[in-house]
Amino acid sequence: MKISERALGMETSPIRKLAPYAEAAKQKGKKIYHLNIGQPDIATSPKFMEAIRKFDQKVVAYGNSQGDPNLIKAIQKYYDDWGMHYETKNIYITNGGSEALEMAVFSLCDPGDEILVFEPYYANYTTFAKLGSAKITAVPTSAEDGYRLPDQATVEKYINEKTRAILLTNPGNPTGVVYNKQEMDMIAEVIKKYNIALISDEVYREFVYDGTYTSFGTYKELEQNLIMVDSVSKRYSACGARIGCIITKNTELCAQFMKLCQARLCAPAVEQVGAAALYDTPASYLEEVNKEYKKRRDTIAAGLAKIPGLVSSQPKGAFYVMVKFPVDDAEKFAIWMLQDFDMNGETVMIAPGNGFYATPGKGVDEARLAYVLNCEDLEKAMALLAEAVKQYPGRKI
Amino acid sequence: MKISERALGMETSPIRKLAPYAEAAKQKGKKIYHLNIGQPDIATSPKFMEAIRKFDQKVVAYGNSQGDPNLIKAIQKYYDDWGMHYETKNIYITNGGSEALEMAVFSLCDPGDEILVFEPYYANYTTFAKLGSAKITAVPTSAEDGYRLPDQATVEKYINEKTRAILLTNPGNPTGVVYNKQEMDMIAEVIKKYNIALISDEVYREFVYDGTYTSFGTYKELEQNLIMVDSVSKRYSACGARIGCIITKNTELCAQFMKLCQARLCAPAVEQVGAAALYDTPASYLEEVNKEYKKRRDTIAAGLAKIPGLVSSQPKGAFYVMVKFPVDDAEKFAIWMLQDFDMNGETVMIAPGNGFYATPGKGVDEARLAYVLNCEDLEKAMALLAEAVKQYPGRKI
Repeated sequence: MKISERALGMETSPIRKLAPYAEAAKQKGKKIYHLNIGQPDIATSPKFMEAIRKFDQKVVAYGNSQGDPNLIKAIQKYYDDWGMHYETKNIYITNGGSEALEMAVFSLCDPGDEILVFEPYYANYTTFAKLGSAKITAVPTSAEDGYRLPDQATVEKYINEKTRAILLTNPGNPTGVVYNKQEMDMIAEVIKKYNIALISDEVYREFVYDGTYTSFGTYKELEQNLIMVDSVSKRYSACGARIGCIITKNTELCAQFMKLCQARLCAPAVEQVGAAALYDTPASYLEEVNKEYKKRRDTIAAGLAKIPGLVSSQPKGAFYVMVKFPVDDAEKFAIWMLQDFDMNGETVMIAPGNGFYATPGKGVDEARLAYVLNCEDLEKAMALLAEAVKQYPGRKI
Repeated sequence: MKISERALGMETSPIRKLAPYAEAAKQKGKKIYHLNIGQPDIATSPKFMEAIRKFDQKVVAYGNSQGDPNLIKAIQKYYDDWGMHYETKNIYITNGGSEALEMAVFSLCDPGDEILVFEPYYANYTTFAKLGSAKITAVPTSAEDGYRLPDQATVEKYINEKTRAILLTNPGNPTGVVYNKQEMDMIAEVIKKYNIALISDEVYREFVYDGTYTSFGTYKELEQNLIMVDSVSKRYSACGARIGCIITKNTELCAQFMKLCQARLCAPAVEQVGAAALYDTPASYLEEVNKEYKKRRDTIAAGLAKIPGLVSSQPKGAFYVMVKFPVDDAEKFAIWMLQDFDMNGETVMIAPGNGFYATPGKGVDEARLAYVLNCEDLEKAMALLAEAVKQYPGRKI
């Protein structure tokens, strides 16, 4: 029986593929500090469970395909507070940011069409593109330049008649980069010049540690081109709820989103009720979370600065940092840390960087570190990492 | 900005497209008996809410991509009780049966590949095929023959080198047909002869009213070809939970399902906990539900038998019946009932049949009726329908 080329061509998640090595290490009694996965340890806003406990429908029936009207209104208000106004008909509730990204691909791309990303980028973007038989075109950025965007002329070299969208995460996963005004203006110019879509994945909007944040939603000239992808996962530490949304002011795109929503009938009822309540979380929760992550960011940055031969720039947002290690191969290094290394029975797990690149051979000596542990644990993890780099047989310095 | 041909080529759901007419009728104070949508009025098994109220995770974290292990085990046991044994690694939790169907398409089809269905069929199958740029090939069945399957030679005429799967619902939506041994053996023969997949959507398994039910999961020779699609939606009247699963013993397919599961990280945490508890629902609940639907089936069948010129055969399963009306156009008839017809301020809503056919022009005088109302309401709805057929200006007899 034939399996599709599409499915066979998909990769296992780079964040999850070393899980069997971690499992084996744990069975030997090793303690692992997990820097590999973006699962925050922060408590979910209690609003979520409060609302769910009150949920009392006799029949858990199909909901509105577009989404629970209360949740849509809550999101509308949230954006109003950010100075961006969307009509309720512009907002479609999705199964996490993931389904929002799928819907963007399906609405924009036919087989063979291209989506432009800046590598390194969130690995699942490739999978979502492949679902639609579309292709990821990766514009390179580099560790040495702090993963900043190249100039407009360079970006334009990667655009052709098949390019349907630029897809980016801001603040960035895996880089931690927050785009500055110059970079955002450049992106806006390119979008308008070629009249393509901008898919802006802004799920880490509240996680910015130096200065303020500007959303692509505030670019008036992009209104007809912008597809906003959002989620409660990171904002309220509710990753397991899988509630996100896709937003656009482009009426024709809205019509496509509605058809895609109808095809899968609705998003889950109970989680939508919980998610609507999350948006009532007081601002102080988000401020506390931001303060905590800023401390963690400073802790991990200080720890990384002490490791000789390592290249990283201070991350400005999200809770990731992309690091270039002085090793032959970061995946081998990651496996070695799980299998062969420990200090007092403890080790560290990181996500190999190659999975965040589309270009073969790139990112081989890089890795993504998620600073989702408390500062004390992060300090221990950094000490372990420093020692591991020193002892690793494949080190390059 | 370009929208994809894929999205533009998708239809609005035939079940939901007349909703604006219903809305307008309701605003004029008309009462509508909804036979258009398969939303049962049966109370959700109370196990669902009991489990959810006890849910107490401090961090609503990403779950296992394959699914909540407790839910997987509950499903395994459920199938064991039906005499079908699956290993836990064969079972993948999905966002409703809908995502299971998408995963089946993505794993089997590349652009241009074909999926064979028997029309009339569940309309969203077309959308799922289009997501993967695959094509639905429809083998006709007819109202006059009670929508029974044609013979093997006829089915084989529709198979070519692009055919990747036969996709069917058993018991049938929209037809209410339950396949007999001869039909199932014929399907099994075709699957083995061409070594293609059988996607068996069996979400109505418990809704069989005459005799027993046989699952394609009991066909040992189909083990490597069978993809089972299932869901808690109808079984436990929990449509809004959006929890389904996709099951196969084919190891290579399992590997594809896992990659697809990883791409969207996990299914929703809270609803999975509720769904796992649903499988503890005592057998008496399902027996009661079956008894109730059998009564409704008898009620609707009796009502339909009284309408002159109408063609329908007694539905054997699910809670749908496909009806051929003595009218020019069932969609016009449906709209007319909402806009221009009433008896004491009451009317009926039905789902036009053309949306359940792939062949243009087919099903124009047919409609799907869902018997999801109590018998008293169903009797009223049938009286309304009989009168509407009599009064409708486009009637053909």
